[in-house]
Amino acid sequence: MTTNYKNVYIMDTYTVCGPYENDGPLSNYFDKRHEKELYFGEKSWEKAEVKLLKEANSNILKKNKLKEEDIDLLVSGDLQNQIAASDYMARDFNIPFMGIFEACSTIGEGILLASTFIEGRFAKKVLVSTSSHNMSAEKQFRNPTEYGAPKKRTTTFTSTGSASILLTNKKSKVKIESTTIGKVIDMGITDVNHMGAVMAPAAGDVIYNHLKDTNRDPSYYDLILTGDLGVYGKKILKEYMMMKYNIELGNNYNDCGTMLYDLDKQPVFAGASGPVCSALVGFGYIYKEMLKGKYKRVLLVPTGAIFSPTFTFQKESIPGIANAISLEAE
Amino acid sequence: MTTNYKNVYIMDTYTVCGPYENDGPLSNYFDKRHEKELYFGEKSWEKAEVKLLKEANSNILKKNKLKEEDIDLLVSGDLQNQIAASDYMARDFNIPFMGIFEACSTIGEGILLASTFIEGRFAKKVLVSTSSHNMSAEKQFRNPTEYGAPKKRTTTFTSTGSASILLTNKKSKVKIESTTIGKVIDMGITDVNHMGAVMAPAAGDVIYNHLKDTNRDPSYYDLILTGDLGVYGKKILKEYMMMKYNIELGNNYNDCGTMLYDLDKQPVFAGASGPVCSALVGFGYIYKEMLKGKYKRVLLVPTGAIFSPTFTFQKESIPGIANAISLEAE
Repeated sequence: MTTNYKNVYIMDTYTVCGPYENDGPLSNYFDKRHEKELYFGEKSWEKAEVKLLKEANSNILKKNKLKEEDIDLLVSGDLQNQIAASDYMARDFNIPFMGIFEACSTIGEGILLASTFIEGRFAKKVLVSTSSHNMSAEKQFRNPTEYGAPKKRTTTFTSTGSASILLTNKKSKVKIESTTIGKVIDMGITDVNHMGAVMAPAAGDVIYNHLKDTNRDPSYYDLILTGDLGVYGKKILKEYMMMKYNIELGNNYNDCGTMLYDLDKQPVFAGASGPVCSALVGFGYIYKEMLKGKYKRVLLVPTGAIFSPTFTFQKESIPGIANAISLEAE
Repeated sequence: MTTNYKNVYIMDTYTVCGPYENDGPLSNYFDKRHEKELYFGEKSWEKAEVKLLKEANSNILKKNKLKEEDIDLLVSGDLQNQIAASDYMARDFNIPFMGIFEACSTIGEGILLASTFIEGRFAKKVLVSTSSHNMSAEKQFRNPTEYGAPKKRTTTFTSTGSASILLTNKKSKVKIESTTIGKVIDMGITDVNHMGAVMAPAAGDVIYNHLKDTNRDPSYYDLILTGDLGVYGKKILKEYMMMKYNIELGNNYNDCGTMLYDLDKQPVFAGASGPVCSALVGFGYIYKEMLKGKYKRVLLVPTGAIFSPTFTFQKESIPGIANAISLEAE
């Protein structure tokens, strides 16, 4: 389902990153950088992630001289069970709240949800936030990292950070031009160390539907960016788009998971993942380059593997989802 | 945040219940009843819950002679980690999907989200579904029931079932008149066996804001129904509303958690809970009575305790949330 918007703009974004992301090539684009360790003064990984989310949402308000009552709606989601990082963040904000979950595609779902409220004139200012934390995710989905379990080269590395995006009906330099809502797609992949393969077909489906609904060619966009497919998932998507839809993703296509880290030097296997990966790259790096005029039209496609350890233990395959967000600079 | 709607109607609802709910006083109002056991032919509790959701969404389509492509959007959420019941349901439906999570208030969030899409003319038909399963919830949040852990009298009993609500822009007998989005509220309760106390302040906040925003008195409604506070939470809410807001909830107030079971005869402690509790009572029983003319104006307030076992182990209190949905029969 594709929707065009006339009145949805990005007022500002605020990104916070952890030490691995700070060591990566995009570090200077992030608004706050935690350089040394992953606890950030908290007593658990989960609480550390709550702190990241609070920082993003508090600081974007402070930077824009806004109070909580100036915001109509707060939309947030993350990878923790019960989206606990978002919930425990939200209890400290006196703002109506909507909790969402689409794994690493959550920021895409949040942006399209917020855009609907603004375009329909139900809200004037909406905050959308997401986060991930390498240690809270590893502990919950795989093994505590202290176990030292070996990794496959197709494994991606959950990024640490948070992002808050302030959407408004007031004209600004970058607008949300349209969005396409994705479907849950399961191609039977069961390898929990190859999320790129899980997500590529969902990304392909939503990109295909977006281009079809808008009657566009991939070349319409200066940049098409998937969320966190990583090195191998990116390759799979390009082949899949060609085979299934006869659509070539060329030099204007990239994947945020291959951009956040220095893949030659950092120990991140096939690249970055986690809800904050596409949020940091898309709303830190790309958004700031759009403000400077480097890109005019960008299709951001946050991708999510809906990995449930419970269903994997029960021999089920892993479904994927993706949403497409078209950003346009004036 | 309160929104009024002019063009959002309930086209139909479909409810599925388990054996405990079938033994309760509202059994005849449910469209499909599983009378004997809780596996429903599946090999795990989690897969049994997926089956419930699939039944509700397939059957509402079949009953209304609709195909998947007639539905613009499917919104769903449940209690399983990663809202896995909804995700694994959605992979079998070729419909754009949005995953949501607000614990037992999820159906309220879904209805207001779908109403926004319809009122804003972004969608014409939206399916909203939710589920819960006593065994999958007990296993994930507490102990496998086989352990036989003793329960406190303030404990509520997670209901088993699913519900699908089909919203449309076409006039019907029952409309979504308005909704109020709730906030995450944490009053410091740490007792995991007293969710009624966790949720009552969130219910109070959203009811107060709804009445203030619409300039209404509780007597405007034929019925005000909270989601799953149970016997003790209901009492707490009435006292809290009087003390904090000087608002009396009188004979037109009730709680779905006290209505789904026969509290004198069934082993359900303080009453029913789970996302499907307010969905079964609100969109099974109450909706059908509205069609018959028994109630004209109903304020349904699904309540959610955002209980994260991880944060509880880390000595954190439990936040709550609630949303208010005003239903009006013509």
